[in-house]
Amino acid sequence: MSVNSFGRLFRFTTWGESHGPAIGAVVDGCPPGLAIDESAIQPFLDARRPGQSKFTTQRQEPDQVRILSGVFDGKTTGTPISLMIENVDQRSKDYSDVARAYRPGHADYAYDAKYGFRDYRGGGRSSARETASRVAAGAVARLVIPEVKICAYVSEIGGDMIDPGNFDEAEIANNPFFCPDVAAVARWEKIIDDARKAGSSVGAVVECSASGVPAGWGAPLYGKLDADLAAAMMGINAVKGVEIGDGFAAARLTGETNADPMRPAKETGPDGAPEFTANHAGGIAGGISTGQPVTCRVAFKPTSSILTPQPTVTREGQATELFTKGRHDPCVGIRGVPVVEAMMALVLADHKLLHRGQCG
Amino acid sequence: MSVNSFGRLFRFTTWGESHGPAIGAVVDGCPPGLAIDESAIQPFLDARRPGQSKFTTQRQEPDQVRILSGVFDGKTTGTPISLMIENVDQRSKDYSDVARAYRPGHADYAYDAKYGFRDYRGGGRSSARETASRVAAGAVARLVIPEVKICAYVSEIGGDMIDPGNFDEAEIANNPFFCPDVAAVARWEKIIDDARKAGSSVGAVVECSASGVPAGWGAPLYGKLDADLAAAMMGINAVKGVEIGDGFAAARLTGETNADPMRPAKETGPDGAPEFTANHAGGIAGGISTGQPVTCRVAFKPTSSILTPQPTVTREGQATELFTKGRHDPCVGIRGVPVVEAMMALVLADHKLLHRGQCG
Amino acid sequence: MSVNSFGRLFRFTTWGESHGPAIGAVVDGCPPGLAIDESAIQPFLDARRPGQSKFTTQRQEPDQVRILSGVFDGKTTGTPISLMIENVDQRSKDYSDVARAYRPGHADYAYDAKYGFRDYRGGGRSSARETASRVAAGAVARLVIPEVKICAYVSEIGGDMIDPGNFDEAEIANNPFFCPDVAAVARWEKIIDDARKAGSSVGAVVECSASGVPAGWGAPLYGKLDADLAAAMMGINAVKGVEIGDGFAAARLTGETNADPMRPAKETGPDGAPEFTANHAGGIAGGISTGQPVTCRVAFKPTSSILTPQPTVTREGQATELFTKGRHDPCVGIRGVPVVEAMMALVLADHKLLHRGQCG
Amino acid sequence: MSVNSFGRLFRFTTWGESHGPAIGAVVDGCPPGLAIDESAIQPFLDARRPGQSKFTTQRQEPDQVRILSGVFDGKTTGTPISLMIENVDQRSKDYSDVARAYRPGHADYAYDAKYGFRDYRGGGRSSARETASRVAAGAVARLVIPEVKICAYVSEIGGDMIDPGNFDEAEIANNPFFCPDVAAVARWEKIIDDARKAGSSVGAVVECSASGVPAGWGAPLYGKLDADLAAAMMGINAVKGVEIGDGFAAARLTGETNADPMRPAKETGPDGAPEFTANHAGGIAGGISTGQPVTCRVAFKPTSSILTPQPTVTREGQATELFTKGRHDPCVGIRGVPVVEAMMALVLADHKLLHRGQCG
Repeated sequence: MSVNSFGRLFRFTTWGESHGPAIGAVVDGCPPGLAIDESAIQPFLDARRPGQSKFTTQRQEPDQVRILSGVFDGKTTGTPISLMIENVDQRSKDYSDVARAYRPGHADYAYDAKYGFRDYRGGGRSSARETASRVAAGAVARLVIPEVKICAYVSEIGGDMIDPGNFDEAEIANNPFFCPDVAAVARWEKIIDDARKAGSSVGAVVECSASGVPAGWGAPLYGKLDADLAAAMMGINAVKGVEIGDGFAAARLTGETNADPMRPAKETGPDGAPEFTANHAGGIAGGISTGQPVTCRVAFKPTSSILTPQPTVTREGQATELFTKGRHDPCVGIRGVPVVEAMMALVLADHKLLHRGQCG
Repeated sequence: MSVNSFGRLFRFTTWGESHGPAIGAVVDGCPPGLAIDESAIQPFLDARRPGQSKFTTQRQEPDQVRILSGVFDGKTTGTPISLMIENVDQRSKDYSDVARAYRPGHADYAYDAKYGFRDYRGGGRSSARETASRVAAGAVARLVIPEVKICAYVSEIGGDMIDPGNFDEAEIANNPFFCPDVAAVARWEKIIDDARKAGSSVGAVVECSASGVPAGWGAPLYGKLDADLAAAMMGINAVKGVEIGDGFAAARLTGETNADPMRPAKETGPDGAPEFTANHAGGIAGGISTGQPVTCRVAFKPTSSILTPQPTVTREGQATELFTKGRHDPCVGIRGVPVVEAMMALVLADHKLLHRGQCG
Repeated sequence: MSVNSFGRLFRFTTWGESHGPAIGAVVDGCPPGLAIDESAIQPFLDARRPGQSKFTTQRQEPDQVRILSGVFDGKTTGTPISLMIENVDQRSKDYSDVARAYRPGHADYAYDAKYGFRDYRGGGRSSARETASRVAAGAVARLVIPEVKICAYVSEIGGDMIDPGNFDEAEIANNPFFCPDVAAVARWEKIIDDARKAGSSVGAVVECSASGVPAGWGAPLYGKLDADLAAAMMGINAVKGVEIGDGFAAARLTGETNADPMRPAKETGPDGAPEFTANHAGGIAGGISTGQPVTCRVAFKPTSSILTPQPTVTREGQATELFTKGRHDPCVGIRGVPVVEAMMALVLADHKLLHRGQCG
Repeated sequence: MSVNSFGRLFRFTTWGESHGPAIGAVVDGCPPGLAIDESAIQPFLDARRPGQSKFTTQRQEPDQVRILSGVFDGKTTGTPISLMIENVDQRSKDYSDVARAYRPGHADYAYDAKYGFRDYRGGGRSSARETASRVAAGAVARLVIPEVKICAYVSEIGGDMIDPGNFDEAEIANNPFFCPDVAAVARWEKIIDDARKAGSSVGAVVECSASGVPAGWGAPLYGKLDADLAAAMMGINAVKGVEIGDGFAAARLTGETNADPMRPAKETGPDGAPEFTANHAGGIAGGISTGQPVTCRVAFKPTSSILTPQPTVTREGQATELFTKGRHDPCVGIRGVPVVEAMMALVLADHKLLHRGQCG
């Protein structure tokens, strides 16, 4: 019941603070016999890594992952896989003000209220740096679900949306925004540059689709695939909203327009698996996958760390103002893309094992 | 790890199908010594009960709850509270077609894909009837958090929104839609009446606010209060989207406009609790409550059961058409209001106990 | 994390007090498609049922189980199976003294210390009556592991042991003591009759063996098959000791005498499964089954409810004496046999599903 | 539900193999504000450390623990505490034979049967080396329960028991056997020396007592304090039996002789807490602590690694013989003492938090 763990049969536990010696994850329940080494994990960490363009924080972290256990002769053994990432570029001196007063929009006050005090260096445990552990664990999860292809991208920054007609998956890796619409890239450069120069920040929406998920993963009624995805995504730093399939737009449809009709698949296998002619449901019905792509949308608020002073109070309850020094992302949603993908992989891997356990 | 359970320290497990002899919930972890009897639960079930107006399903269920254990001399004993609700008005004959083919938008195909077969009578376990168990369990949860006041209402039906300027909490109980805007009631009557007559259905958005939650409930990083709420709400039948605080709208704000500034409270207690001058965050920062009202929005899709025939396939994979006979809500979101409140209460009760366990 | 639940993938939750309207269990995670009805459960309840001979409590309980959910067309659906057993023969008037003072050897004082008060009627939740729920759940578990044959029996009563040379499995069902040694039956009749007439009670040891368990069930390091069995058995009312394989006797062996040597099986399959020439380990090594019979021994203390007055204190801390009126077993270990079998089945079913989930 | 985790609210997860780069534990749920640094943990590891006398394995491991997270300004922060211990003295070359054939009494065959292969170096994950992680986690648990004093010792080696009349707690730290009876020390030296010289091994019994546990910890019915202790102890490498209080001896008592009578405490507090005049129950009734010392006995089998060749089979199913080279303890029970203490602390810390959560 550990609150720093996630998953049931495929379960990971993360540890570490922004300015401690290291962060890490212990992945438990990974099936044995999967080929793995650090090179299966590092590319996903590299995609999340800060300091790669002027559009993200300038903190320089190599984010080199080490596998400390659970692997023998290049294969998973079925025992816990301990992953560690050392913290290298910590500048604790940047955070002296934060010790004194609460940054609005941050977890500072909430942590103090809960625990009586907090590790104020870089947000401590509440820092987005923890998401590196999720990405590392997610890379292991991907090995469990080779049949699934996961693709996430940014669809909106600062209120500026991509044109779905321009969607080009190949474009996502070609720009620092994980943007599938080449026409939006130039606009977003300006939006983020403007925000950065103004010491401000902007929000973003990330969309994610997982294709290849067979029908039958998930479980009623409190282990629903969509409920687990909602928890997984809402638990990412800065996320304030989650939609499955059409999400809030579905609330404006009618029963007819929201239906996902079925027809016989052209090449029907022995199980009579149908073909859907729409996917308003986002690939999930009754909490169980239908065989269609599993889709979700995730809303990231603008980075709370901004250079504009904000009214706040000190630990002693005195009025003061605070702006956040240090190096921060003008749009945290961008680096959220690999994290969203990781959480999708982690939830699906868990449900694959659960399904096999109960129904295999 | 049971997938029909929810919660950690305050935990409930539900059982039962739409057309079995009864449904129920076992509530485990309820603190001892709380005054309780059936009358503490029944009013919430009555609010959810079908057949009360022409705007909801005409199935007539008295939904009388019985407490079978865990209570002695009118008080909870700290042992499991078993709640049972008998099914009375089941008309299994209505569901013969459903045995043969898959209803689009329903869990029929997903259940078959997962389990190999399904209880097709009224959706079986996937029926919204299960939410009565949640409402009963939620009523027990409310006893655990007397300091919290929970208020949910419908803010949008079929795309027609309330006017926030007209918000009147007292109005919510005065109409069959849980609508706080008296001006919207007449419009919604027509929308739903039209949908019902057309054999169609409409979606809805439910908003919920919990005031009185002290700062400090919740937990990083996989027991976040907002992540648990997201799972709780997304797990309700027909829900496709969840927002905390400003939700997706936050993705369009800047760091400055999204900040929730703090100032010294007028009557500052010894702990220097601040006063917030905005609540974009929905009362949660870093997964932990801030002392502000905890707010969320929940999107319900239109009822999938409609009278318009839809293309679908039979279990054997043959093309057919299906429309759903039986008695259904033209807008399931309406009866979702007591369920949303119940899930809010269940999550908060659990986090109160968790906080006390770790930090008490 | 509910403390009234047991198991991971095959999980059950029990509820109910000795003198409430009913007791029951919700079994969650049972695979779909297993043939089941009440007749698959009732015989095991009948074996545990009180009032069947003068050697057990004279409380008359029909212990008729009802399946309330999770079954359709005579097969499990994969959804929760709710089992209910009504309490019929409750004589609450017998327990008036217990409300006033604490019975030595009972949980009375512990419950009061924990919860502030207790349901004193028949021990409430701490009554051995709860074990009927375990037996019912265990009957469902047996359906999950048809390859396993479980056999438990009493090997010692009041210090009088069976002669292993006389062991005859067929004899177990032929006497009221689940005794496999026909020569011991007459001696035990006298021991228990003497104890009953003296208003006293005696302890017992129950042994249990599960054959047919394939190699590979169980899990390092905190889901060890033997650790789970230890928890399962120690959690039965009145149990004070658990041994796997040779148990405490193993502490007196040497490495050589305790080894379980292996040799090629006469008919070796493609996986080279070996044949063991001894089973000191009780069929478990490193927490994982080896393919040999899984064996354990369980020590039951003498019934705490005796007619001899004992020094004790009242709720207010005054000295008093108390003897337990009411109808009680002179040797609770006897009726523990079906419970031990049920717990063995429940643990094995859970580990079969877990193994399939991770390694399937 | 991770099988490499233990505990509910105070929960730890261990990782690492005998011959990997390191082993470790992540402790989650530790309350905030407890003073801690490595020096609070190291002494307990030193007590378990190998190579300290000729009576234990000659593997030389400094077992220096590092705290990687969860601590700030010398206090726990309430977030996960990551503990790491590097493996230093690994001699993998000793284990070449083990790759080829199965060591009798070891988990080799069981791991292969479960996972399809295994890390054969030093037993991999099944090595007793993992218990260092438990000891480290247990040291953190002790900080949570300062009111409790835990004392474990060896009461029997190779069938030779201490004389209870000679019990002297101060003696335990004065000899390499954790023996409280100075008269037994010389005898045990010879027993173990003989076993070592003969390439054999002997078993042991460890007893443990926790005083200061208040009444009320524990929980019916599947979170019983004794059931959790049974799982905790049976999960330690080489353990085959667990007793609470009188254990198997209780099965030979009568209701009268097994009763733990109560009388008013001489200085009765406002809650009327009674004084017990016996402790057959081992401080636990109905799964809940009574305020008396919590006592248990744990049986360790003789070390399976011996120098005498044993019949066994190869991975391919061919008959062979095997003896275990490498450096091993002639009596693993001795070094089990700090592990038993750690598991006692871990279970009690968890139940303290659970009690506070539900009943606080």
